[in-house]
Formats: sequence, structure tokens, C-alpha cells
Amino acid sequence: MEGPRGIFAPVATPFDAAGTVDWGAFAQIVRSMGGTRLAGLVVLGSNGEFAMLSREEKVGLVAAAGENLPSGKLLVAGTGCESLSETSELTKRCADAGAGAALVVTPHYYKRDMNEAALERFYASLADSAPIPVMLYNMPGNTGVNIPSSLTLRLATHPNIVGIKDSGGNIVQISETIAGAPEGFSVFAGSGSYLLPVLAMGGAGGTMAVANVAPDYCVEIMERFEAGDLEGARRMQLALLPLNAAVTSRFGIGGMKAAMEMVGFRAGLPRPPILPAGAETRREIAGILAKLGLDVKNTA
Amino acid sequence: MEGPRGIFAPVATPFDAAGTVDWGAFAQIVRSMGGTRLAGLVVLGSNGEFAMLSREEKVGLVAAAGENLPSGKLLVAGTGCESLSETSELTKRCADAGAGAALVVTPHYYKRDMNEAALERFYASLADSAPIPVMLYNMPGNTGVNIPSSLTLRLATHPNIVGIKDSGGNIVQISETIAGAPEGFSVFAGSGSYLLPVLAMGGAGGTMAVANVAPDYCVEIMERFEAGDLEGARRMQLALLPLNAAVTSRFGIGGMKAAMEMVGFRAGLPRPPILPAGAETRREIAGILAKLGLDVKNTA
Amino acid sequence: MEGPRGIFAPVATPFDAAGTVDWGAFAQIVRSMGGTRLAGLVVLGSNGEFAMLSREEKVGLVAAAGENLPSGKLLVAGTGCESLSETSELTKRCADAGAGAALVVTPHYYKRDMNEAALERFYASLADSAPIPVMLYNMPGNTGVNIPSSLTLRLATHPNIVGIKDSGGNIVQISETIAGAPEGFSVFAGSGSYLLPVLAMGGAGGTMAVANVAPDYCVEIMERFEAGDLEGARRMQLALLPLNAAVTSRFGIGGMKAAMEMVGFRAGLPRPPILPAGAETRREIAGILAKLGLDVKNTA
Amino acid sequence: MEGPRGIFAPVATPFDAAGTVDWGAFAQIVRSMGGTRLAGLVVLGSNGEFAMLSREEKVGLVAAAGENLPSGKLLVAGTGCESLSETSELTKRCADAGAGAALVVTPHYYKRDMNEAALERFYASLADSAPIPVMLYNMPGNTGVNIPSSLTLRLATHPNIVGIKDSGGNIVQISETIAGAPEGFSVFAGSGSYLLPVLAMGGAGGTMAVANVAPDYCVEIMERFEAGDLEGARRMQLALLPLNAAVTSRFGIGGMKAAMEMVGFRAGLPRPPILPAGAETRREIAGILAKLGLDVKNTA
Repeated sequence: MEGPRGIFAPVATPFDAAGTVDWGAFAQIVRSMGGTRLAGLVVLGSNGEFAMLSREEKVGLVAAAGENLPSGKLLVAGTGCESLSETSELTKRCADAGAGAALVVTPHYYKRDMNEAALERFYASLADSAPIPVMLYNMPGNTGVNIPSSLTLRLATHPNIVGIKDSGGNIVQISETIAGAPEGFSVFAGSGSYLLPVLAMGGAGGTMAVANVAPDYCVEIMERFEAGDLEGARRMQLALLPLNAAVTSRFGIGGMKAAMEMVGFRAGLPRPPILPAGAETRREIAGILAKLGLDVKNTA
Repeated sequence: MEGPRGIFAPVATPFDAAGTVDWGAFAQIVRSMGGTRLAGLVVLGSNGEFAMLSREEKVGLVAAAGENLPSGKLLVAGTGCESLSETSELTKRCADAGAGAALVVTPHYYKRDMNEAALERFYASLADSAPIPVMLYNMPGNTGVNIPSSLTLRLATHPNIVGIKDSGGNIVQISETIAGAPEGFSVFAGSGSYLLPVLAMGGAGGTMAVANVAPDYCVEIMERFEAGDLEGARRMQLALLPLNAAVTSRFGIGGMKAAMEMVGFRAGLPRPPILPAGAETRREIAGILAKLGLDVKNTA
Repeated sequence: MEGPRGIFAPVATPFDAAGTVDWGAFAQIVRSMGGTRLAGLVVLGSNGEFAMLSREEKVGLVAAAGENLPSGKLLVAGTGCESLSETSELTKRCADAGAGAALVVTPHYYKRDMNEAALERFYASLADSAPIPVMLYNMPGNTGVNIPSSLTLRLATHPNIVGIKDSGGNIVQISETIAGAPEGFSVFAGSGSYLLPVLAMGGAGGTMAVANVAPDYCVEIMERFEAGDLEGARRMQLALLPLNAAVTSRFGIGGMKAAMEMVGFRAGLPRPPILPAGAETRREIAGILAKLGLDVKNTA
Repeated sequence: MEGPRGIFAPVATPFDAAGTVDWGAFAQIVRSMGGTRLAGLVVLGSNGEFAMLSREEKVGLVAAAGENLPSGKLLVAGTGCESLSETSELTKRCADAGAGAALVVTPHYYKRDMNEAALERFYASLADSAPIPVMLYNMPGNTGVNIPSSLTLRLATHPNIVGIKDSGGNIVQISETIAGAPEGFSVFAGSGSYLLPVLAMGGAGGTMAVANVAPDYCVEIMERFEAGDLEGARRMQLALLPLNAAVTSRFGIGGMKAAMEMVGFRAGLPRPPILPAGAETRREIAGILAKLGLDVKNTA
């Protein structure tokens, strides 16, 4: 089975001041994203604050995304939970709600118990039962657990495991996966800060926070690369670094949502205890957006 | 308000081969633990596999513990979730179900967003609304987030925050907390491997995996220390180290449950993807138990 | 062979504004320290900026210390280098210059190569040839290499390896060493922030930066503990924490030297690129010293 | 000033069984390397075991390299020491001995003191006085100290600081440096495992252990890339990963020297306490070399 290709945004989940999901704003974001050149959306990703959501909210968001995303776009749902049974059940419910693939983060609270044997059995069992293709999600910065390339390569032979989003930023590990994986296994950059290096090594695309803020800019990096314009792709990639840092390592979820609002997506507030971006952070983000030439509509 | 004192066990949640909670076995463990000299139990702790449980299972376990624990023992519930709203709601439901205090782990998936300001607001808001006293739970080994002593000391002034379980093992940080906290704020060792150092520095007790296996042994360390028998307490503490390592860092949840079964507690299996202890691990644990003079009833 | 006991100061090496060793100031510090209740001095320790010194300076400092230290005090020299041959030769030269024991930090630049086999052979070979007793020096904060307790215990059976200074701060690892080491093997706290916990677990003393600033205060913690006054020792230990942090983790070598100058030891400047403490740091240190009741003579 | 470009090998220092530098073997390696398409050699790099060498040996090795390297090749000397004065003096002596540039690792034993201010002053002072151009050397895996891109960019404006070898493997940090550095500032991959990603982002080459084993193979990756054959460069880069891992992260200095011997370079033994590769490691390396199509001459 062929894995997905292209640029995906891990769409934000907007909350209102009471901490409730703002369903109207969410539908609007999905429709707006649907109008870009993105290959699709990841709902319930890390940047979608999946860890803050109840199971009913999760399924509801997938359904809402399915209703508002154009049919040519792939809808991916983040369905990883700590237990295998809950992950399996959520994957089925999200598939029923319209997801075309599942992006599954490693269980991680019990780090010492999440050795390679446990992770291998987890992913293989899940993929056996999942009605939709499974992508591994390596996110050591948030989980403290890394999927080594040797394990990815064993799992890549499973017919229902079609790729990996690697957010670890270790270009060597990513290269090892590309070197050893079967044809058609998709290796995605998990951050916009190293999209081009991953493409240069043979990756299939990226799913990254910054695509929530500058979706077509990210797509253009990949288009230029695929058209042989390495120089142009590099120039755009280098220019993207400050914005990428602002919406990830520097200012976190609050920073990403603020940036989305500034460019016109109604991303709303984070759910507590995540704090919204303060005034100084917002000013800095506005400056970064302006320098990149993005149209800043809203800096309130 | 005075925080708790003494030794607590973070009671295991037994699962059967199908991954279902074994309610009968759980009630039996709680009744057995109730017959020891433990000061109480923590239900839904890390060793209770809280992260593997649904909300209904969580509340059910607290209720079941309440029904089976003698009235003189304190029932503590682990109620920490990623979002403030879910933590707050779960704390209320656990209080209704019989919990006398809440042990609240740091939100941690969004590590970059969990700065001191976010954590302070999280705990203060929770404690404002909680119908039972709150204890902080610092567990950097599992969460990747540390509560620095400066933050603990600010939170220790809240009238409804009565203590901390510090599982970080940093005796200096623990000492700083003791040095600066108000009288009556309870500082607990989070592992049996450093119970005596924490007591020597002025701590109030411990809640630790090894108390699931050797509850009265752990209590005796504290009793000897309080009676002025430092030499005897030290000898017992030093002898406990191999068992403590076996049920935590070396063999994880699977090892702890195997050890519990060996000494007669029906701890059952871990919930997948956590793997049960293999045959070799079990043999090693049996040897460690025997060397400590514990009565091994069941090595099957 | 019996290892040393008591409190040792890792004496500072004073440099003048040109970066040259100030031999007069050094002799004066050694004589002053000789008048305290310290059990001895470590010359060429981490706090003595050993890594900044040429071999000739190193041997010269040991000789100078030997000439100025009263005969009842033990003179320990830090002789660890990256290569075995250089370490071995320096140990011999320091012994000739008057050192009574060698404190030997792990080689560490080639971390990946410094596995247990390499470290074991290093220390065993060194101890075979050393004309004076050897103490292991575990300093993972500076070296990135840890000596696990299993390795310490194998080395502790060597007749010429008499103890360890463990600066890792892991009280469990320290306890494991005490639990398994032969009678008379000395386990030293490597920082004043956890002297009492180490003593409570059976340690033999400490060698620590803060003893450069408050030698008799540190000695009194140990004296009270040994006299059975745990409560008094604890009170002093807790009160010492801010000063200890100031001269180690917070303000480094520059902070330690500033504090020494304030209490009357002519510690001089660090050698570049280590920077001296700035004015704000000095003010903060002065406040911490005053709060601890130490006599601040010089805050310029 | 324009920084260097191309592929450099951090040439090994051969020792005999007594731990003595084998000068004849060294001269022979240098001459052999001089016959490849390498742009030059780094003497006294990490892989040259610089930390194991006395000052006289260091200067002697630079002189020997200068005598044996063809004039068209650049001779770079690793001159970083802990103190500024020693680094400065060694740089001058190496320049006198024939080095054309200095590669200067961060001082690192006093990690807490090596803040940005200290590192900035260290490098700027050194570069002011150095008779040859200076390259920064970021090697966090060995030193535990990282040079952030913000600091590199400040230092890149110094007229005598011409580049950086970044061995941290963080492709984002490397990209940030390229994005912000002045034209002509050379950014080098510090490992052969990510040479192509660095080139794709605009880097100037690499200096890497694996170039000691397969110099012309590494050069060919860069030549293909520069000729526009990204596909061919990628294929070679991916195929190189197992050998690169074998001579760095997996088997360390001992593994690299064994691999060099196998392909015909007389690299000799590591200096103790670094252990030579064992028989099993050697067999594995031989297999990796064969798979890459390198001519294995010597597997004894």
C-alpha cells in the first residue's frame, strides 16, 4: 500500500474563553485549509491539543473535519492513547467518522516499559485491527520516547503501516528509515524546520505546525524541490526558520494559535493550563510574519 | 491544614488476560493492604496504571477502594489529567467516591508550554475548587516535567495544597522544599530507594511502588527512624535497594506486579502495551525477595 | 586499607589579573585552611581549576600545599587526565611532591569509548602502579560520564582503591555503593548540598566547594551528626543550601571565588575563559553569606 | 576572508602497543590521504585523539603532517584547550609548524561557566591573536556544550573566524547558521551521516571520521551534489550510513582505527584507556565495508 505524500497541517482546535471547543471556528478553519494546496489535514495532532480532548470531542472533531474538507484532501486522525484497547477503539470510531488514515503517537507515560518489544506489539496489533492505514508518529520532544529506525523498519513491512511522521529532528535517523524502508513507505518531516533536508534525502512530505500558519508557502517549498529548483526551495526553507521556531519551540501552542489568528485563521485560545501568547510574544510573532511577507490581518 | 504522614502504597490495578479490570482481585488487594501498618493507599497512581484507565474505571476503582479500606486509613486518588477542566472534574468525582485527598501529577504532554506560570495557575486553580486537599506529584521520570522547589514553595502557601510526592530522586530539591515549606506541609519520598534520606532531612513519609510488595517492611524503616534507631533504619533501607530497583527502574510495572503476586497480592497482569514480566525476570525477582527474607508464596 | 574520613575542601587556585598563578595567595589559603577543623585539602580538584593548569603548575601547587599544610591534615591531589599514561605519571609526581592520596576523575572526552570495561581497566591499572591510595571521582555534571555503583563495587575490592567522591548527587547510587562496599571504603559526598543524607546512609564525609567558604560550618554538620544530634545537623544542612547553590550550580567557579574573598580567603580570579562574578552576583552572594551568619570581611 | 570548502579527514594518530605515537605510520597515512581527492586534513581532531596527546606530541604531529601533505591541501590543526592562554599558545605553535587554519573545540569541563558570554570572549580573544584563521568546533556529544546559532552568527562577523564544524547533528541549528552567516563563512558537517543534508542547505563541506576510511567515496558525494546529481549523491549518502555509524556512535575510536587498517591505512591502536575493537566488532565492520564495495585488504 502506498503511503501519503505532500504537506499536511496538524490543524488547531479552537477553544473559547470558557475552554469549550468552538465548533463553528473549527469548521471555518477546515474549509479555509481545504482551499489551499495542502494534501490534507491531521485532526487530533499534537498541535490540535489532542491530549486536552475527551473522546467524544475527538470523534466530533474528525466528523466535523470530514464534513468540511474537500473530497480530494486526505483526512488523518491522531488516535494514539496510552492503552492498546483505547487506541484501537478510537481508531475505529475515527475511521467511521471519516478519517482516511490514523497517525498514532507512541504510548509514553510508562517510558521504561515502552521498550522495542512493547512498541512493536502495540503497533502491529493496532495495524492488524485498524480499518484504515496507520502511520507511526515519533514525537520524542513531547513523549520522551523515540522510535529507533530499526523498529520503524520492522514495522514498515506490515501491510497496514504506511509511513511515519518523525518529529524528532534527527536527520540521520530519518535517513536510515528512508534507506531501509520498502518503496512507498512515507517518511514525513514532523517540523517545518527540516522539511527540505527530509525531501532531499527522499522523504514524502511533511506535517508541521507552521503549515497551519503558512500552508501554501510550505507547499511551495516542496513544489520547487520537486521541480528541480533546489536553490529556490532552499531560500524559502531558510527564510521560514524564524516563523517555524516561533510557533513551536519558542512560543508553543499559544504562539501557533496567535500566529494563525494574525493570518486570518480563527484558532481561538489554547485549553488551560496552556497559556495564550502574551502581548510581547504577539508583537514578536507579528514582526516575524511581516518579515516573511505574509499578510497580517489581525494583530489584536 | 496538616498534610498526611506515613507510608502509602500506590496500589496496583489488576487486569485479567483480556485486559479487563479484575474488580474482585482489586478489592482483595485493598483489604489485604488495609491489614498492614500502611497509613493509607494511593489509587490511580503511576503504579496503578492510571494512564491506562478510562474515567469510569478510575471513579469505580476509587469507590471500590473506599468500600474495602478500613476507616483509619487515608484514601488518596491520583486525579491529574492534561487539562485543568478534566482534572478538576475527576477530582470532584473521586472525592464523591470516597477519596480523602488528591495526588495530582503535572500536565506534561505539552512540555514547552508547562512553564512555571502555567503549572502555578493549574495547581492553584485546581486547589481553589477541589473539595479535598491536593498534593503535588512530581514525576519527571515519566513526565519529563520537573516542579522546581521554588514553585513548590509558592504553591505550599495555598491552604488546600498540603504536600508533595517527589519522585524525582533529587535529594537537594527535596531538601530545599523541606527547608522552605510551612510547618505541616508534607514532603513524601516518591520511591522506596531514598525513603530514609528524605526522613533524615525532615520528610513526612513516602508513597512508593515497593510498599506494594513489602508494606510493613517499609513502615518499619520509618518506625525505627522515628524511634531514634537510625542504624537499624539504615540497615533495612540499604537491604531494600535491590527489591526497590527490581519493581521500578529495572523491571517496571510488569516486575512490580510479578513481585506482588509472589508475596500473595493478586496484582494480575499489566494492561497492554505494557508487557508482563518474563520467566527470567521472575526468577531474578524471586531471588531478590528471598534474600530480603520475604515469604514467597507464589512463583508460578 | 582504610579510606579517609571527614570534611575536605577542594581548594581554589588563585590567579591574578594576568591569568598567572598567585603562589603567595595560594600558600596563604592553604595555611588558613590548615587552621580549621577540616580533615584535609584536595588540591587540583574541579574547584581548583585543574583543567586550566599545566603539568608543571599542577605539581608546583601540590608541593606548595604540602609545605603549608599542617602535618595532621591529609593532602589529596586531583591527578586524573584523559590518558592512562599521563594520569599515572602525574600521580607519581604528585606523590613525590607530598600528596597522600590521589582523587582521579574519569577520563571523559571520548564518552562513547569510556564504557565500563575501559573505566575498569583504567582505574585498576592506575591503582596497580600508584605509590599512594586512589579515590575514584565521579563528576557526571562536568564529565558526562557516570561511574555506576556496580563498577565502583568491583573497583572497591582493589587494595589500593580506598574510596569514591561522588558528585553526581544521586543518593540511590551512593546508597548502593555504601551497601555493597567493603568495610573501610570511603564514600564521600561531592557537594555540600547533600552531605547529611550521605552521612545518614553511612558515608565517610565530604569534599565540597562550599567547604572553601565555610569550612568549620561544614565540619560542624558532621560533628553534630556523629554526636547523635541529627536535628541540629539537619537544621545546619538546610540552612546551608542557598550558599551551596550559589558557589556551585548558580554562579560556578566565579561565584565560589567571590564568596571566598568575601570571607577572607584570597581566592583571586578564575583563569579565562571562566569569568569572574559580576556585581549583581556578588551582592546576592553577600546577602546569602550574611543570612547564614558568616562574617563578611570583603565585599569589594 | 573566505572559509575552506570540501571534504576533510580528521586524521587518526597511530599508537603502537606501548602507547607511543608511531611517527612512521602517521607520515604514511598523511601521504596516502594526500593522494586522495580530499581538500585537506585535520590533525589533532577528536578522531586524532587530541585529548590523549601532550603538547609536544601535538606540535610534532602538525609538523609531520605539514612535511607529508601535498602543497595543494589545507592543513588544519585542532588547537582547543580548556584555558584561553594554552589555546592561544598552541595555535601559534601549530601555525609555526605549518597549520593553515585552527579548528577550536569549545572549552567544556566547566560547563556551567561556559555560558555564551564566556564562549564569545574566548573565541573572539583567540581569533584576535591567532596568526591563522579560526574555525569554531561544536562537538556537544563529547563536550556537553553546544554553540547556539545565535552565538555562531555573532562570531561569524569576526574577520579571522571563517567557519564552523558542527558535529551536533542538529540540522535546524546548522540551517540557522547558514541562513544568517555572511557570504564565505564555511559551515561543515561534522559527521558523514548528514553530509548531504548540510550540502543541500548550503554547507561548504564536511570533516568527518568516515573520511578516514573512505575518503574518495565522501568526496564523490559532494562532487555529485555539486554537479546537480542529487539522486546519485543521495544514493551514496544513504549507503554510507552503516559505515558511518560503525566508525562513530557504534564502535568509537577503536572501530574507526580498525576500519582504517582494513582498507589499508596504518592507524594502529588507540591510546589507553580507549580500547581497540574486539574480534566481533572487526568482523561486523569488515562486513559493512564489503557491502559498501570498499576493498578490504587487511582483516587480521
